[in-house]
Amino acid sequence: MTTRQPRLEIEYCTQCRWLMRAGWTAQELLTTFSTELGEVALIPGTGGVFDVRVEGEIVWSRKEQDGFPDLAVLKQLVRDRIAPDRDLGHVDRRLSR
Amino acid sequence: MTTRQPRLEIEYCTQCRWLMRAGWTAQELLTTFSTELGEVALIPGTGGVFDVRVEGEIVWSRKEQDGFPDLAVLKQLVRDRIAPDRDLGHVDRRLSR
Repeated sequence: MTTRQPRLEIEYCTQCRWLMRAGWTAQELLTTFSTELGEVALIPGTGGVFDVRVEGEIVWSRKEQDGFPDLAVLKQLVRDRIAPDRDLGHVDRRLSR
Repeated sequence: MTTRQPRLEIEYCTQCRWLMRAGWTAQELLTTFSTELGEVALIPGTGGVFDVRVEGEIVWSRKEQDGFPDLAVLKQLVRDRIAPDRDLGHVDRRLSR
């Protein structure tokens, strides 16, 4: 199956009912990186998983980081992987204070 | 890049601002087929595209079908591909009237 690069994956726990959270995260990332992302895949999982991967590499794992990502932080992490020269505007300014 | 099977793709036109429509469709399908779908990929496209593919095969194309899918119809089309024995309840009853 052909995928579009760069591919971002969001694997979420269906038992925890995190589909809406995953869907919202996907839409936020696709709004910000509309020309830089090849695709965002929503992947149903189990056992409390909420993992975000770019090209197969973890950029956020709820279990490792002990919580959900702040969206501004997540956008910076994704930006660093797929568009390192991109200025995220107020996101960057807020987090550098 | 490893994908999860069955893979459903929604390619949408960013210029037409159909991300919300695509995101809503993805979430509806993942709600209905939470254990039958391996992943749903949202793919930014251009030029008025709104295509839904399962395992690479078109199940709905806005340009071919001259419009957007009714969600109940789309669920039946997806069901026929990935879970043909699955009864969709009121969706099947409404459309067989």
